[in-house]
Amino acid sequence: MKLFATTAMIACTSFAGAFAQSPEISQATEIFPAGSRASARGPKANFTGSVVVDMLYRNNAHTTNSGALVTFEPGARSAWHTHPAGQILIVTSGAGWVQEEGGEKRRIRPGDVIWTPPGTKHWHGATDKNGMSHIAVSNVKDGKAVDWMEKVTDEQYLD
Amino acid sequence: MKLFATTAMIACTSFAGAFAQSPEISQATEIFPAGSRASARGPKANFTGSVVVDMLYRNNAHTTNSGALVTFEPGARSAWHTHPAGQILIVTSGAGWVQEEGGEKRRIRPGDVIWTPPGTKHWHGATDKNGMSHIAVSNVKDGKAVDWMEKVTDEQYLD
Repeated sequence: MKLFATTAMIACTSFAGAFAQSPEISQATEIFPAGSRASARGPKANFTGSVVVDMLYRNNAHTTNSGALVTFEPGARSAWHTHPAGQILIVTSGAGWVQEEGGEKRRIRPGDVIWTPPGTKHWHGATDKNGMSHIAVSNVKDGKAVDWMEKVTDEQYLD
Repeated sequence: MKLFATTAMIACTSFAGAFAQSPEISQATEIFPAGSRASARGPKANFTGSVVVDMLYRNNAHTTNSGALVTFEPGARSAWHTHPAGQILIVTSGAGWVQEEGGEKRRIRPGDVIWTPPGTKHWHGATDKNGMSHIAVSNVKDGKAVDWMEKVTDEQYLD
């Protein structure tokens, strides 16, 4: 399983190189089958605990965002970070937390949608007792979707 | 349950009016809880069969797309249509079909991601035997995400 460096690296590439196996491209409509690319792991520099990233689609000439399914094991979370152009999260399973700097930790549940505006320092992840998966729709600006910061300490996480 | 007119109508409004109940807005990060708005029905002019639309998020100053979970009963499908700026579908459950004009009908499965480029005339929906749900990430251009056309006949659908 290949490490992927940062969401920004993924987000700044085009559809063309996005898939290990070629999609069905005999028609204008492209279908990228589930499982056509290996899952990636969230790198240790930017995540605590086991985090699996399944890229769904990348930005292209028409789409200024990239989409990924991100799965956190219990206790796993992102580092503190900001999104230069904002990000939408759609929780698909489990139980998670999201917290912005200076704010309380908030519970997120399947079906919840979270909007993080540009420049808001925050983290998100699973709770300590349950795993959590979300689809992330990350707006890309100047080829970048995220600015990574320091890790979330256990004290911050469990507070 | 309120009818919603077109994806375009929904897509051209801002976050501010998007929710029947106010989200938690004491912080910059906004959480829109599952079930905070009633589901809508795909209007008969643009869909065949029962189609339920759960709006997830709308385009805003930073996000040039809107997101919706769309659920088709077996046999239900969209009318023929194009997307002026393209659309991503992420299949979340069931079994479906997608077809572009002049192309064969293609099966779509959970986890598949479909990219429909701008201007490609097509339809999508459930198969005749199973329901299907997908998240639609619709790019919005000049306040519009879709141009609707004629209905998909039973002959076209079952061909």
